[in-house]
Amino acid sequence: MTTVERTISNQVNDVFEDIKQTRNTDYINNFWKDLSHDEKSLEETWSQVKKIMSDGKISYLYKEMIYVAVSIMNNCDYCIHTHTLAARKAGMTDEMYSEFMQVVLLANKTNAMATAMSCEVDERFDVSKRKEV
Amino acid sequence: MTTVERTISNQVNDVFEDIKQTRNTDYINNFWKDLSHDEKSLEETWSQVKKIMSDGKISYLYKEMIYVAVSIMNNCDYCIHTHTLAARKAGMTDEMYSEFMQVVLLANKTNAMATAMSCEVDERFDVSKRKEV
Amino acid sequence: MTTVERTISNQVNDVFEDIKQTRNTDYINNFWKDLSHDEKSLEETWSQVKKIMSDGKISYLYKEMIYVAVSIMNNCDYCIHTHTLAARKAGMTDEMYSEFMQVVLLANKTNAMATAMSCEVDERFDVSKRKEV
Amino acid sequence: MTTVERTISNQVNDVFEDIKQTRNTDYINNFWKDLSHDEKSLEETWSQVKKIMSDGKISYLYKEMIYVAVSIMNNCDYCIHTHTLAARKAGMTDEMYSEFMQVVLLANKTNAMATAMSCEVDERFDVSKRKEV
Amino acid sequence: MTTVERTISNQVNDVFEDIKQTRNTDYINNFWKDLSHDEKSLEETWSQVKKIMSDGKISYLYKEMIYVAVSIMNNCDYCIHTHTLAARKAGMTDEMYSEFMQVVLLANKTNAMATAMSCEVDERFDVSKRKEV
Amino acid sequence: MTTVERTISNQVNDVFEDIKQTRNTDYINNFWKDLSHDEKSLEETWSQVKKIMSDGKISYLYKEMIYVAVSIMNNCDYCIHTHTLAARKAGMTDEMYSEFMQVVLLANKTNAMATAMSCEVDERFDVSKRKEV
Repeated sequence: MTTVERTISNQVNDVFEDIKQTRNTDYINNFWKDLSHDEKSLEETWSQVKKIMSDGKISYLYKEMIYVAVSIMNNCDYCIHTHTLAARKAGMTDEMYSEFMQVVLLANKTNAMATAMSCEVDERFDVSKRKEV
Repeated sequence: MTTVERTISNQVNDVFEDIKQTRNTDYINNFWKDLSHDEKSLEETWSQVKKIMSDGKISYLYKEMIYVAVSIMNNCDYCIHTHTLAARKAGMTDEMYSEFMQVVLLANKTNAMATAMSCEVDERFDVSKRKEV
Repeated sequence: MTTVERTISNQVNDVFEDIKQTRNTDYINNFWKDLSHDEKSLEETWSQVKKIMSDGKISYLYKEMIYVAVSIMNNCDYCIHTHTLAARKAGMTDEMYSEFMQVVLLANKTNAMATAMSCEVDERFDVSKRKEV
Repeated sequence: MTTVERTISNQVNDVFEDIKQTRNTDYINNFWKDLSHDEKSLEETWSQVKKIMSDGKISYLYKEMIYVAVSIMNNCDYCIHTHTLAARKAGMTDEMYSEFMQVVLLANKTNAMATAMSCEVDERFDVSKRKEV
Repeated sequence: MTTVERTISNQVNDVFEDIKQTRNTDYINNFWKDLSHDEKSLEETWSQVKKIMSDGKISYLYKEMIYVAVSIMNNCDYCIHTHTLAARKAGMTDEMYSEFMQVVLLANKTNAMATAMSCEVDERFDVSKRKEV
Repeated sequence: MTTVERTISNQVNDVFEDIKQTRNTDYINNFWKDLSHDEKSLEETWSQVKKIMSDGKISYLYKEMIYVAVSIMNNCDYCIHTHTLAARKAGMTDEMYSEFMQVVLLANKTNAMATAMSCEVDERFDVSKRKEV
């Protein structure tokens, strides 16, 4: 559902301008356009993205990679596309992407194995159980 | 299904010894014990874990964090437990974990939003469509 | 896989006519057309939809909203599209949709948090455990 | 990971007191206790729950049911338990729960069917495609 | 939520007796006990299980294996446990289980890869697109 | 992301030739073309597919059906398309597909029911618990 906003409210316009300035671009992604139907949600979500994704104790690059990992598991084609690109722009090389995918696939594999075996958390790793002893 | 192997084959024993030496511990996790019923799968999976999770272009710490992100999305209690612990041992501080969870939750949120809105990949981000033009 | 049925069996035709009459429309959705390859499944599924989705102790409108919530979590683009439209036709306003999405996103967030923390069911909420005491 | 906070910061205490007062109880659920390790996240999440789940255009009862639907699809045992109870306290009868589960299972079924058949969104329901014509 | 039914209605009793006779056992699984709170759902679900899981064009053994595959992907611990046991009783050897898990893990891997690459269905495999040409 | 490889390395060419010969076709699927950007991953994945999917204790036909079951649960449109076709070519009739889908939908239904009811594994089916007694 790609919707081109024709008459944009001031509130939406402010967010769009902030997106353009922050990302140094003239282009507004479909996600933000689609979301502009709900001004409050647009504002809140952009404000979260801006704050949470910026460099912190974890660098922006690794945040984008964690973002892509979640998006792959949620099978969100839109987010995989845009955030894989974002990670590449932020410095993710082919070699890094290859290592990234290997970790994603390994975790996905061992998750399914542990689930299939009904693998129980080891007593020594289970904080609450240790406490009850 | 936690199974204590009583009579362990040589093949299983070799893997267990390698796990102990690599991880500098005397303890074998339930996952590996449960997997020891299928020697080939045990060997292959341990060999993958050892190789893929080691420092590379992406450091071991960030590999563990990507691993945990995937495990949360797969709802694998066992893997969340053990790999969150592993990430902490590798240097993930409370602040890093807090940022990590914020990124996971933000991606999970925008994934659901993009899905609910049937958000379409922007033409400019869609490599194959550009090609067909 | 959109399939236009050319020669339709009597059995399929009966279901199609019932859909048209029940929904007061001349249009048969792709879902039912695709399903018409398996007459028994078409009949059974339409009969379930007709019965389960009608007003009951829960009104049709809220049934459609629960339906959309499930479809978002299952990432089913087709069902999200058609049932969000159906909910709107049944009276879901922009404000209601906004509240609906906030609940979906909140549940999705706290689900991931509880999973990441391996949150245990409180003894007082766990019926079976209380019984064993 | 059920953790009983011994020394609680003032910030955490304030949230706990607000939870007790709002819900008219002396009991703090494991979810909030577990979350109290991250004060900011505790405050933000409780504030969201308090605001989003209160009666609005959608009543509290139906918000709880939508919440449970999402939690079932995410397989979050903790949230299913606590929010099914909450919905029952808010007036969900056995008959309503039975209808609720029928809708959840029907949506889950047709989602899998549409996915298995790669069912395409009907042109007439696809807003963006209509626009491009 | 394991509930031991004390006073069982005739309707529930009939289903329980049919389960015992069909499966040649005196034991009723927790799933059926838990479900007995909703007589109609109990009857309908047991009748589906009895009919769908019996030998047909696909043998009971392979039906159980397909059942387990779905249950692993849905992370349903209860169903994985009971139906892996059922498959073993129906003749699934260690070797077959090992091959089964390899296929499950391979599909799970290539699914994630195709999703991460946004892999498009080949024109020649896309029935509906061919038709439009 | 459908990428037509123009200049193909020898390593990629070898895999492509092996695919053509093994499958007796001149056509390389988009999946393998997209994967050819990462030679090592291409080689490894093709080698797994070739080995794991071949007739064994479980026939190729049933392996394809298990593959499709996993792909439906993962909502991977590409894999559902290609492997449903592959299963049909391997002998899956309309009747078998109908039975297959019934099992998938039944498992998917009872999974959601067991999850919604927080159904506990029966003591007699829980190997590890029996051991601790």
